[in-house]
Amino acid sequence: MQINLRPVGTVISKTEDSSEIEIHERFSPGLKGIDKNNIRYIWVLFWMHRLSEDAREILEAHPMGNRAKEKRGVFALRSPMRPNPMGLTRVELVERRDNILVVSGLDALEGSPILDIKPAGSDRRSN
Amino acid sequence: MQINLRPVGTVISKTEDSSEIEIHERFSPGLKGIDKNNIRYIWVLFWMHRLSEDAREILEAHPMGNRAKEKRGVFALRSPMRPNPMGLTRVELVERRDNILVVSGLDALEGSPILDIKPAGSDRRSN
Repeated sequence: MQINLRPVGTVISKTEDSSEIEIHERFSPGLKGIDKNNIRYIWVLFWMHRLSEDAREILEAHPMGNRAKEKRGVFALRSPMRPNPMGLTRVELVERRDNILVVSGLDALEGSPILDIKPAGSDRRSN
Repeated sequence: MQINLRPVGTVISKTEDSSEIEIHERFSPGLKGIDKNNIRYIWVLFWMHRLSEDAREILEAHPMGNRAKEKRGVFALRSPMRPNPMGLTRVELVERRDNILVVSGLDALEGSPILDIKPAGSDRRSN
């Protein structure tokens, strides 16, 4: 079975304080109703595009890259190395300008394809 | 750009109380270190396999399917309809038996392909 994803946007800039996500024009109707007055936190699912295909074969790694620690399985770690290298981060919505979301706390690199955006609970309790 | 995912497991059973996830043999080294004594909560990322390809074109929907409510963009909703129909649920690890994880709280259907497993913070605060 093969599953194909379509990027819905891209991380277009990143500073220490915030990142800008541009949602592709084609998918911008999906943003209707998102503004920071009603949705303060969102989940951002992104593709770790800099990882090589080989890295997807790695199933065990040292926690935090610390060789003093015994290796663990990648499903027990937040390591970027995993069979499907998707990152998942709960970020704060700082501003929305049309199809651009300015967020803080995103650990994606510039150029990372965005796969999905979902609202997150404001009390950090809902998924 | 096309992104290909490989399912790493499947939801093999589901009751009212719990679900069983079977990680495919090939990926089972990725589970090393997962047991409920050190990882109580995990994020499960799964593919909503029952949705048609057409449903991926829907970009706006009524919240909770309630037609009395104005339509919103799918990125502002937890609706299963979205360009990349991936579900994301934080579940409690009830038991691990080799390459089977018994979890509670998973809203995936039986047969859903599993895309990733990540540890979640026990205090529900970390992503």
